[in-house]
Amino acid sequence: MTAASGNDGISTDELALATRNHGMPLEFLRHDVTPVGAHYVLTHYDVPAVDTDTWRLHVSGAVDTPLSLSLDDIRVRPRLSRTVTMECAGNGRAFLSPRPLSQPWLHEAVGTARWSGCSLADLLAEVGVGHGAVDVVFEGADRGIEGGQAQTYARGLSLDEAARAEVVLADEMNGLPLPPQHGAPLRLVVPGWYGMTSVKWLRSITVTTEPYTGYQNTRSYRWRTRDDDPGTPMSVMRPRALMAPPGIPGFLPRSRFLRPGPVLLEGRAWSGRQSITDVQVRTDDEGPWRRAELEPPDDPYAWWRWTFKWEATPGDHVLSCRATDDRGVVQPLEPEWNVGGYGNHAVQRVAVRVDGA
Amino acid sequence: MTAASGNDGISTDELALATRNHGMPLEFLRHDVTPVGAHYVLTHYDVPAVDTDTWRLHVSGAVDTPLSLSLDDIRVRPRLSRTVTMECAGNGRAFLSPRPLSQPWLHEAVGTARWSGCSLADLLAEVGVGHGAVDVVFEGADRGIEGGQAQTYARGLSLDEAARAEVVLADEMNGLPLPPQHGAPLRLVVPGWYGMTSVKWLRSITVTTEPYTGYQNTRSYRWRTRDDDPGTPMSVMRPRALMAPPGIPGFLPRSRFLRPGPVLLEGRAWSGRQSITDVQVRTDDEGPWRRAELEPPDDPYAWWRWTFKWEATPGDHVLSCRATDDRGVVQPLEPEWNVGGYGNHAVQRVAVRVDGA
Repeated sequence: MTAASGNDGISTDELALATRNHGMPLEFLRHDVTPVGAHYVLTHYDVPAVDTDTWRLHVSGAVDTPLSLSLDDIRVRPRLSRTVTMECAGNGRAFLSPRPLSQPWLHEAVGTARWSGCSLADLLAEVGVGHGAVDVVFEGADRGIEGGQAQTYARGLSLDEAARAEVVLADEMNGLPLPPQHGAPLRLVVPGWYGMTSVKWLRSITVTTEPYTGYQNTRSYRWRTRDDDPGTPMSVMRPRALMAPPGIPGFLPRSRFLRPGPVLLEGRAWSGRQSITDVQVRTDDEGPWRRAELEPPDDPYAWWRWTFKWEATPGDHVLSCRATDDRGVVQPLEPEWNVGGYGNHAVQRVAVRVDGA
Repeated sequence: MTAASGNDGISTDELALATRNHGMPLEFLRHDVTPVGAHYVLTHYDVPAVDTDTWRLHVSGAVDTPLSLSLDDIRVRPRLSRTVTMECAGNGRAFLSPRPLSQPWLHEAVGTARWSGCSLADLLAEVGVGHGAVDVVFEGADRGIEGGQAQTYARGLSLDEAARAEVVLADEMNGLPLPPQHGAPLRLVVPGWYGMTSVKWLRSITVTTEPYTGYQNTRSYRWRTRDDDPGTPMSVMRPRALMAPPGIPGFLPRSRFLRPGPVLLEGRAWSGRQSITDVQVRTDDEGPWRRAELEPPDDPYAWWRWTFKWEATPGDHVLSCRATDDRGVVQPLEPEWNVGGYGNHAVQRVAVRVDGA
């Protein structure tokens, strides 16, 4: 992956991605579940046209009983529903300097949805995973050129991770049939992980006895400090808190304006499979960090709501929030640069002007 | 509105808009009706939090019987449904040079939806429009700072335009309750016009006896050739054809690759209130324009489907399409620059490489 120089504007190639891929406007942080159309979407290639009537899911490889399933076959199985916060591994990339050239996300590549379908663990038990199985490979219907090679989007996941009880093969989002852009007719949802793991437009599941070495595992989605660094794979989401910017925005730039007096700051926080133990808010860069109120989610894989009562005083302020999880991991103030621009969970800063507007 | 110099990259301020506002990935041109979440969305300020239970629509001004309506009051009225293609007036802005600083759309600010609700004409008849009425002003619940002034988004429409039979006060999109980002609980939909007219999060309708002079009519959304030009108002959509890019894309850049042989090129075309009489396709800049097959829509305000059989030969090609409407208006090859970056309906160019990939 190449990088733009430090202060370059966004290129037309990056803009072509930014106008296709959808972020969640941060005022949607007020919703427990993100409405369809506001949840982030990152599509590597094109959204494929899949004919639901002829679509099949092929389950094969190191299994006792390979299967080919229709969507009806999926729907008659016992239902599993999970409310899951999902974030793109590249969220925050556009704040890095130099900026890795890819989808230029600011903060918006996140959302929480109710995914319903059947249990992957049950399906793996049904087909009977063979001796020596190590990985499960998920292939979608979306095809393109990346890293100089024509490929179908695919990701491998270790058998241990794939067989976890919370992993969903989802044909519904928020109680409705999966929309095309979210992977219709069927997608994988791996709670706690960055979004690249949750393969959309699922076409095949293959159990392998050798570690999977496909592009999206071994070349992309790795934390690398240099181009020749083999790096380590991205996996579960790092702790992060985001704030719904208070007051009213400018159209351009999107500065924030509010009146003096009491303001309820609110947002959400999440961290892979961990609980959030603390969200702290700072209303000026030199001010103290103070503890926000936390409300746990109904599903442990969904984000936590936080609120903080602020007495806004006239002048310019920079509001920040930071989350700590139950391993004691806390968000950094500055991004950690890496080649792919992944996992930037540095503290959000929201500049506001308090006046009579 | 200020402008970037000719070759500048997209600024962080523009990117902050691009990550909030959603374009329709062009492969969705294959759908008659755009799925929720793939339709374009342009929000001037924040998506407001509207409590549907306490929400009221106030109809007042130069009317005999002012009304205050709940959402149930809207829902019990006779239903009106229209399938409508809607495009942002700023679609294509990012192709202008110098680039007007605003939402940097490429081609994606369009979509077609089935909007259902009640008839504005019927509601105006019910309240009794008074003598001397000239404009109808629609105000939303969204508030922000634009052009240096704090304002609630509002647009005026002439009484003649507002009273047309096809104008919908919509509480449903594609058969489901209006999503928050599309204006829940109620929005205006004015078929044939650019999207700025179809005010979202509608709160009041006011009939006036003087021409409306609000910001979004008199300062924004005008075709101006210089900063001191009062300009002319943007209104109905200009003719335009767009193509779903064929083959498979690169991830970045989004070049297109396909194999030699027969390819069905397809897309859509529309023009305000006009019929499309012709879509032509050119598969090389020096090649001839050839006529595509046209399929009229079920609703005259929805886009026309077009198809064109191409025998792809190895090499690099630039595919273009252009629409002509029943007034004989045809798309230009080059954009017409204007201060706000509106109405750029210049012919789309899709570069493709035909090889064995």
